[in-house]
Order: sequence, then C-alpha cells, then structure tokens
Amino acid sequence: MERIEVALIGAGRMGQVHGGHAAVHPGLRLKYVVDPRPEAAAAMAARCGATVALLEQVLADPALAGVLVCSSTDQHLAHAQAAVRAGKAVFCEKPIDLDLDKVRRAAPEFDGARFLLGFNRRYDPHFKALRERLQAGAIGRLETLHIVNHDPASPAPGFIPTSGGLFKDFTIHDLDMARWLLGEEPCEVFAAASCLVDAEIGRLGDVDTARTLLRTASGKLCVISNTRRSGYGYDQRIEACGSAGMVAAGNLAADTVVALDEQGAHGAPIQADFPRRYGQAYRLQLDHFAQVLRGEAAPQVGYADGIAALVLAEACQQSVRSGAPVSL
Amino acid sequence: MERIEVALIGAGRMGQVHGGHAAVHPGLRLKYVVDPRPEAAAAMAARCGATVALLEQVLADPALAGVLVCSSTDQHLAHAQAAVRAGKAVFCEKPIDLDLDKVRRAAPEFDGARFLLGFNRRYDPHFKALRERLQAGAIGRLETLHIVNHDPASPAPGFIPTSGGLFKDFTIHDLDMARWLLGEEPCEVFAAASCLVDAEIGRLGDVDTARTLLRTASGKLCVISNTRRSGYGYDQRIEACGSAGMVAAGNLAADTVVALDEQGAHGAPIQADFPRRYGQAYRLQLDHFAQVLRGEAAPQVGYADGIAALVLAEACQQSVRSGAPVSL
Amino acid sequence: MERIEVALIGAGRMGQVHGGHAAVHPGLRLKYVVDPRPEAAAAMAARCGATVALLEQVLADPALAGVLVCSSTDQHLAHAQAAVRAGKAVFCEKPIDLDLDKVRRAAPEFDGARFLLGFNRRYDPHFKALRERLQAGAIGRLETLHIVNHDPASPAPGFIPTSGGLFKDFTIHDLDMARWLLGEEPCEVFAAASCLVDAEIGRLGDVDTARTLLRTASGKLCVISNTRRSGYGYDQRIEACGSAGMVAAGNLAADTVVALDEQGAHGAPIQADFPRRYGQAYRLQLDHFAQVLRGEAAPQVGYADGIAALVLAEACQQSVRSGAPVSL
Amino acid sequence: MERIEVALIGAGRMGQVHGGHAAVHPGLRLKYVVDPRPEAAAAMAARCGATVALLEQVLADPALAGVLVCSSTDQHLAHAQAAVRAGKAVFCEKPIDLDLDKVRRAAPEFDGARFLLGFNRRYDPHFKALRERLQAGAIGRLETLHIVNHDPASPAPGFIPTSGGLFKDFTIHDLDMARWLLGEEPCEVFAAASCLVDAEIGRLGDVDTARTLLRTASGKLCVISNTRRSGYGYDQRIEACGSAGMVAAGNLAADTVVALDEQGAHGAPIQADFPRRYGQAYRLQLDHFAQVLRGEAAPQVGYADGIAALVLAEACQQSVRSGAPVSL
Repeated sequence: MERIEVALIGAGRMGQVHGGHAAVHPGLRLKYVVDPRPEAAAAMAARCGATVALLEQVLADPALAGVLVCSSTDQHLAHAQAAVRAGKAVFCEKPIDLDLDKVRRAAPEFDGARFLLGFNRRYDPHFKALRERLQAGAIGRLETLHIVNHDPASPAPGFIPTSGGLFKDFTIHDLDMARWLLGEEPCEVFAAASCLVDAEIGRLGDVDTARTLLRTASGKLCVISNTRRSGYGYDQRIEACGSAGMVAAGNLAADTVVALDEQGAHGAPIQADFPRRYGQAYRLQLDHFAQVLRGEAAPQVGYADGIAALVLAEACQQSVRSGAPVSL
Repeated sequence: MERIEVALIGAGRMGQVHGGHAAVHPGLRLKYVVDPRPEAAAAMAARCGATVALLEQVLADPALAGVLVCSSTDQHLAHAQAAVRAGKAVFCEKPIDLDLDKVRRAAPEFDGARFLLGFNRRYDPHFKALRERLQAGAIGRLETLHIVNHDPASPAPGFIPTSGGLFKDFTIHDLDMARWLLGEEPCEVFAAASCLVDAEIGRLGDVDTARTLLRTASGKLCVISNTRRSGYGYDQRIEACGSAGMVAAGNLAADTVVALDEQGAHGAPIQADFPRRYGQAYRLQLDHFAQVLRGEAAPQVGYADGIAALVLAEACQQSVRSGAPVSL
Repeated sequence: MERIEVALIGAGRMGQVHGGHAAVHPGLRLKYVVDPRPEAAAAMAARCGATVALLEQVLADPALAGVLVCSSTDQHLAHAQAAVRAGKAVFCEKPIDLDLDKVRRAAPEFDGARFLLGFNRRYDPHFKALRERLQAGAIGRLETLHIVNHDPASPAPGFIPTSGGLFKDFTIHDLDMARWLLGEEPCEVFAAASCLVDAEIGRLGDVDTARTLLRTASGKLCVISNTRRSGYGYDQRIEACGSAGMVAAGNLAADTVVALDEQGAHGAPIQADFPRRYGQAYRLQLDHFAQVLRGEAAPQVGYADGIAALVLAEACQQSVRSGAPVSL
Repeated sequence: MERIEVALIGAGRMGQVHGGHAAVHPGLRLKYVVDPRPEAAAAMAARCGATVALLEQVLADPALAGVLVCSSTDQHLAHAQAAVRAGKAVFCEKPIDLDLDKVRRAAPEFDGARFLLGFNRRYDPHFKALRERLQAGAIGRLETLHIVNHDPASPAPGFIPTSGGLFKDFTIHDLDMARWLLGEEPCEVFAAASCLVDAEIGRLGDVDTARTLLRTASGKLCVISNTRRSGYGYDQRIEACGSAGMVAAGNLAADTVVALDEQGAHGAPIQADFPRRYGQAYRLQLDHFAQVLRGEAAPQVGYADGIAALVLAEACQQSVRSGAPVSL
C-alpha cells in the first residue's frame, strides 16, 4: 500500500500524540512538521523522519494530501481554512475555536470540504461497543445517559486563561458523546458548577467541578459528571438506561492483577491519563482519516458537529452564570 | 434475654416485612396485629403467633413497649401520635405524611419522644461501610455524590394517586441518603423529570424518570438518578468523590456464578426487589429499634429527619413545576 | 404451621451453629439439648428456649421427631445409631466417623433410615446455581473441575490429633462436591501434600497444604486445592469447564464497597469464615431436614454419600503416603 | 535513534507476528525475509518493506546485527546455530527443538552467545506485575501456584503429528512460567491427561486436556491446567498463594461493556487468541531483543531455560505414559 503524505501543523502536546501515531501508521507518511517554535519543530521532525517546513511550503506541495491541525486552539480555524483553501483534507483537533460566532461565520467555507474533527472518543472501542449494543436494541428504547469524565489531575493554572474554561475545553467531549449516543439533540441544559479542587482556578474565573443535565425534546435525560482532578486516575465511563435494561462501559485497569489479604482486595489503578486511555482511539481515528484521504470514507465527525458541541458548551456556561436552565 | 413486647399497626406490604422480622427477632415479641381489614389482620397474626386487636386495646396494654406503624401513609402520623401519647416507643414507616404543613404542625408533640423513622438504607451494611470509609478519610474531603435508585418495575397505576408522587414516595430515600452522607444540608435543588416508562403515570400527573441535582453551601454537588422501571432489577448504588479518591457501593448479584462462552460472560441479575436487597437492613433497623426500646440507644433517625427529607422532596416537585432551581 | 420437635445432641461449635438455626426455624421446635458438659448444655438450652436432657430421655420422648447429631466426631455414629433405633429422623454432622471400616459395618442399620448427612455446601445457593447451569447444559459436556477450599486460619494444633487429618476433616467437603458435580465416580486419586503453614502440624503427622487430582473413568479431571491458612479469608470457589464454555462460582465480599485512589482499587475482604459464608446454606439444609421430618422429601445426602467421600479421603491419604496415584 | 538491522527467518504464523512487530519497531529495521516458500517470503517482504534473501546471504551481511528465528520447529536449532556461528544475535521462537538430547548436545555452542528464547509470557505486563508483587512480598512466602492456559479452539489434526504433543508444544509455556515464578526448580512432576476434545487427537497419540502437578524440594505445589479448546476464548490466568495472601492475574475482556437485563449481566468475551492477548508482550519482547542488540541488556531468557522447560515437558509425557509421578 502506498503511503499518503500528510503534514503536522503544531508540535505541542496533541501534535506529538497525533504526529507520533502518523509517523508509524502503515498508510501514511508524515512528510512535514510545521511549528513556529524552531526547536519543537525540529525535535518532532527528527523523531518522525519528517522535514521542518513553513505552512505555505507545505500547502504548496501538490503531493501532500492532508494536514493534521494540532496548533494552539486559537490557530485551529485559520490553519484549517488555509488547508481547505489549498485543497487539502484536514484533520483538526477540537475545538474548532473558542468563539462560536467566528466558527459560525467560517462555516460556509467548510461545506463539502474533507474536514474531520478530533472527537477521539467516538473511536474508542469500548464506547463504540456500547453504541453498537444500543443500536442493536440491547436496552430497548434509550431513556437516560450518564457520562463520567474526570481528569486525573488539575491542569497548571497557567493553562486556564486560554483554555476556554471547563465546558469548552473539557466537557465538550461529553457533549459530543451525548449527541452521538442520544440520537436526538438536547433542547435544555442546566449546569451546576463549583470550584472545589483549586481555588486559583476560581480566581481565574473558571470552575473545576460540574454536573450538567441535558434534556431532549422527547424527555431523554443525560447527566455529565466532570472534575478536573479525580485523585484516582482518568475516569471515563458511560452508562445508558433504556426500556429493557442498562448498558455501561467501565474503566480500564492498568493491569489485571488483584491481591487479596486480610485487609481486602487490591487491584491496579485505572488508566492514568488520556494518551494511555485513548491511545487506541487515536490510532483508529487516524485510520479513519487515512480512509478519508484515500476517498474510501466521508468524515464521520464534521464541522457541524463542532458547532453543535460548542453551542452546548456555551449553554452550560450561560446556565452557570444565570443559575437557570438554558433552552436551545 | 427477655423479649420486649411490640405491636404491628398495619398488615399491608411494609407491615408484612417489618412484622415478619419482628416475629423472629430474638429480643422482641410481636404481641398484637392491628389492621382495619379483619382477614389481613388475622392472617398476619396467625403467621406471627400474635393476637388481633384494636389500636385502643393495644395502646392501653401497659406491658406493651412499642409499636411499629406500618399503616397506610395517610394514617402514619395519626397512629404515631396516638402511640406517643400512650407513652409507647414508635417505629414509623416513611414518610411521616405527604403534607409537610401537617407534619410541621405536629412536630412539637414528638419532642423528646422515642420516635424512629424508617429510612432503612441507613442500616444497609454496604452503605454504612461506604459512610465509614468517608468518615475515615478514605477519599479526603467529600466533593460530589451520585446516588442511583432505580426500581425494577413500575407500580400499578392505581398506586400513583395516593403515593405522593415520585419525589415524596421514592426519591425521599435518596434525599435522606444525601443528607446523611453530605454532612451538610442542600441549599439548592434542581430536578428534571420525564414520563418515559408509562404514559398512564403521566396522565395521573406524576413522572417516572428523574435526575435531581443538589448543591450545598460549600459547593458540594449531588446527583440523584431515579426511574420507576429499570428493566434489570433493583439498582441501588452510591458513589462519592473527594479530594483524594472515590468510593462506591455497588449492586449485589443474586448469585456469584459467571458463565463464559463464545458470546461472552454471563452473570446473575442484580437483586430483584427491596425485600431481598434490604432484608438485612430491615433486620438491623429492627435491632436498633430494640435497642431504643431497651433504652440502650437514642433513635438514629428522628422526626426532624422526616421533615428535612420532605422539604427537599417538595423542592424537587416545585423545581419540576417551575423548570427552575429552588433555593432552600 | 405446627412446629416439629427436634433435639440437639452436642452443644459445641457445630451444635451451636445448627442449634442456633433450629431455634429460630419457623417449622422446628428445638426441645432438648444434650451434652456431657453440663454448662455447655445449660447455656445452649437457655439461649434456645430448650430443656437440658439425657440422650435416653430424649429418644424416649414419642413426640420428638428428629435429632441433630453434632457431638464430637467419634460419637457421631453411636448417636446416629441410637436415634435411628429409636425411630427418629437424624441429621448428622460430617463425617459419619473417621474409621471407614466401622462406618461400613454399621451401614446396614441405616438402610431405609431417614438419615441426612451434613454436607452443607450442597445447599449453598451459589454452588447450587452453578450445578443448575451445568445441568441446563450451559457448558455442554463437563470435562474438568477445579475446587478451591482454603480455610482462613490454621486450627489450633490441639485440634489436629483428633481431626482425622486434612483429607478426612477438610478435603472431604470437596470430595463430596466433586462427586456431586462430576456426575461420575472418581476412579483414580493422586494427592500431593506439604506442610508449609505450621511446622507443628507436620510434627503431628498431618499436612496443611494439598493439591488433589481426581480422574473419572471417562477421563474427566478434577483438581482440589486446599490450605489450612489462606491469610485472606475463607476462599470457596468452584470452576467447571466443558465442551461449550466455563462456569464459575466465586467468593462473596464482606461488602460491595470499592475505593479508588492513586494506588489502585481497594475492595472488602472475602467472607471471613464458615458461619458467615455458609450461614444461608446451613439454614437451607435445615429447611431440607424439616421437609424430611414432615415426610415431604427424602434425604438428599445419605449414609452412602458419607461412605463414598470417606473412601476418597482415605485414597488421598494413601496417595500421600505412597507418593503414587491410587486406583479405586 | 539509528535502526538496527535484523532478518526474519520464517514467514509462517509466528514469523508474521514477530516480523510484523519488527517492521514498525522504532529501533529496528527488518532488512531481509528468508523462507523456503517463495510466495510466503515475497508477501512478507512486501508487507514489511524488506528484501527476500537466502539464509547464507543474510548471514554474510556484516551490517546485519540479528536474526529472528521463526522457521518450523525442526529448523529452529539449525538456524539458530548458523546465526550464532555468523556472530549474529538470535531471537528464537520456542521450543529450541523437540529432541532434548539434540538440544543438550548443541548447548556448548550457545555458551556466551546472545540468544533470546521466545517465552513471550515473561513480557506480559499482567504477569510481570504479578511477579513484581510476589517479589515485593505482597503475599509473604510463596506456597502454591495455579496456572491456567486454555487455548480457544483445537488445532487442525494435521498440526498434531509435528507439534511435539501437548506438553512440548503448549504446556511448555506454563512450565517456563512455573520456573519463573516459583523461584525454585520443580523436583517432581505428575501429569494426568485425557483426550476429551477431539478423538482424532487421541488417535494420533496425543492428549488435549491435562492437569499437571509440580512439586519443589521445599514443598511448593504448582498446578497447571491445560485444554486445547476452551470454547470461550484464550484463558490465561495465574494465581499465587502465600503466607500472607493471594495474588492473581486474570483475563482481559475484549471490551469493558456490560449489559444488564432481566436475565442478568452480560459482558464481552475474553480475548480470543494469542496475537491479541499477547500483542503487547510480543512488542515488549522485541524491545528487549533490541536492547540485547544494542548491548544494553543480556538476554533474560536463554538456552538453559529452553532446556529446563523441555526437561519438564518430557517428565510430563513420561508421567502420563507411566501413570506415576516422575522425580527430577
């Protein structure tokens, strides 16, 4: 199989994740690394056998089929637009942008573009298996959903101001999961949030602990549970109840070993962080992008999904500010 | 050990549960059964080796130490009052009454009375073990709580009109659990409810599916998950998160047997109903009442707890009606 | 329901278990307690509302329907014989006797007698559920069995000399389980045993750790795993493999609470000892004896089962002595 | 990091596993593929970006650092010898050969050679975690071991005649695990075996179901449970008991999803086969070989380990033939 050439835009935390997977992907060749920080670009290029380049050079290369946009959040949209204009297929880290108006204004440009948004959890084999059971009717008609997304440890306070806040940065994954699983758009959002983990986060105007309640027109209810610091690992669970039962996807333990002694049973911690928990999801997401590049599949998660999740995240913020539910 | 004499008021569903346990309790002698329906009274008396009697006769017996009030909900308060006036210790099924004003007006009479309210889940060994771990500091400072209470199968529609509705009849247990575990009173309630299980319940003005969000003054968040029909058994779980970890009490399977075949792993259903799931809790609750009767303990759950839970249940109802959070 | 009168012979450890259950059994009346030690007899009688009596008096009471033989092992047979001669139904703790020849010689007397042997594990709901799944064909044709029976803590050395040794005292339960589940008699026994727990047990000529391998004529294989001291509770598991899968009965935890922290997951210990683990089995065994007394059931475990288990236990002993498998 | 050049000898089932991992290993370059079957060699070479070559050519290439011997079992030893003579480091699939005498005679040639034997389970993160807990003293002094190794489905009968039989082909992994974990060599072996799965296997003189009992000089006992066909997946478990508790490594489910309905709880099957169950172990084994190639580590599993496991496998065969334990 011939390898399709792609470029990595952004060699930061997520760029290293996606670029690392692309470098060993059997169907892709990571040709270029673009990053305004020369050392970061060089280090990543060396690690992946790629070439450091400027965005313009990259987009001018007619052999290049696609780009992986992993730049800082405020650059996602500009980089994605440039790539689309150059006729490249785009994989873009979430969120498209923190500014919903800006995202909406740019939407027409993405009509018909090959644009894949990085809601990685849709590719997680466990959540996919859960969705398949729902669709196979294992629990009859879906009624309620409970999504747990607890980060292991609070981010550095320096991250908070540009993060977009808990809902746009973190809950947005769960809002996308809710849309993906409910089969219906939420029509009401109520979010209760506190600052219990780190008082500095509160001083910066953000929250670190939230419970969000979504309701759909038909009365389905969804609870999203978030914290910035679980203290026990990266807690990622989904539970769905329906007219004929319940189906749940649980956490993965770091290993299967259990010790029994007088005090009780002692097992391994759950997976510690997102690169480990979602490593397989990232690889499968890239497989899907490779299919998009080969023209074998249309993007499963598009620009409109990015808008819809952002709308919900803004509604969460508004609900916290007003203390009341927000209708959509 | 001499057996202390008690009377059962009400030989219905809950009367049979508590009377049945009292009849074989090593420290109690079930002396009388009172019920306006002669056959129900006779059958229960025969089963327990007790005598059918009228309430006045029972309360006039100076040898009788206590009564178990298991009459219909609208009679709980009157029967409890009569027993307290007669100087008897009272075990009273929840709720005290559906009418909060009435309960509040009667409160002074119960000052100093030996009155134990039947919030049975406080005696469940699993939930007690969870609370002990919280109190031992296993998860640091408590931040959030998730209480799951799913009934296996919807009640007959005939039960709904006199039930008090989902929140006063059913959620009230979880509201008491929340108070018991949070260590702080909720100051805000938001409840979202739907009628997804049985349209007849909706026609009767009630709901069958709810998610309730409580918030305390310090910012602790508690979600209560309720449905009238799980379709998979009596789902009773509690999960608490704190600054140093998480602690959860799960369901009990009907047996430990697991079969593995090509299709997967197949275990037993969870406990099917409340008499089986909480059988031990009912026995331990009665042990506690026996201690109260012997003067060895003060009632752990009193009249004020009944009021507090009812206040929260009314707030849930009001939140559903108004679509907005209710401050307390 | 009229209560059937029974007597307890022996107020030691097992007598207290069975007598305690009989005293609160709705279908039984524990009328007499017999024990050569006056204080033990008096204490047990007081606890159960029974009368202290001599064996001859008890057996001469025409109203008495049955006896529970819980005397010391070397008295089981004599007491059971006396009761059978007096026309009483007999529940007898295992083993019938440690001396196989003596047991065999007495066998004719028990022909047609209502004699129930106390292999309590056959009444355990978990092992019964496992057997029902086997019989329902859940795993196709049974091929292998693995029985784990680990005592929590080593007995006092003083118990060893009269115990009959590990195989007759302890493994005998598993040998009965194997017979009950295999559906075929073992035709070969190989046992490997060590003294790893307590050197004093070795000095007394016994072993404390063993792995026993049974084979049936059709080639089914069964492993029995025993230790006198697990260090982590009373480990009681059975696993059966067949042509279409596997079915396993696991341990019961003391409670369902699990805590997660940075170090991992921490659950409760498994059930600590036999009165707790098999409390329900003892009650169900007594239910069955009550049925036998009422003529509603024939004893499910009889004298012949006692002989068969003893034959296997002796074969284990012989295999350990000779270091070779023993054919039966 | 510069990639070290290696060659793959044998493009069959195991060659595809190891060659596939080597082709994407960041520290290795798979340069050559050798296989007497031209199409197999060409297909594998194309898949991995390698060149088809003859063994002599490969061994004559001074730039080549190591070979992966994955040829048919009867060629392992000859290929390993040739590679060692050419000064190459050797990774060799197990077993070295089925003929113990031949293996012993060749042993001196491997003195000091960089020879890594493919007992992949030593690299499995779960079994490694179990061993680390043993070594950290989690269960005190090790007393007993139970190793379960059940293949999902019986091999084609055509495989049996050249397989070496159940013990040399399959149990040999467990014998190595036992040696690795016991910390002491077994001094006695007793194996009971049946042909329950496929009568054709019996006609070919082999067995398909076995229970093997190992004993060490200090009295430690180890049971190995094997079947050629579990019917429920690739069952791979280890359980170790000691003076202070128990530690066990369980199976991995294909996913974490569990559905609850009226019939019970339904989870995913366990991992279906060895490439999936041990994929990570194969990658970590190759990491170790890369370290050996770079001179950063000595081989953790050597020629002597291959001999020791083969000696035990022969003892199992002899025990089955004689029906008696075999002393070593």
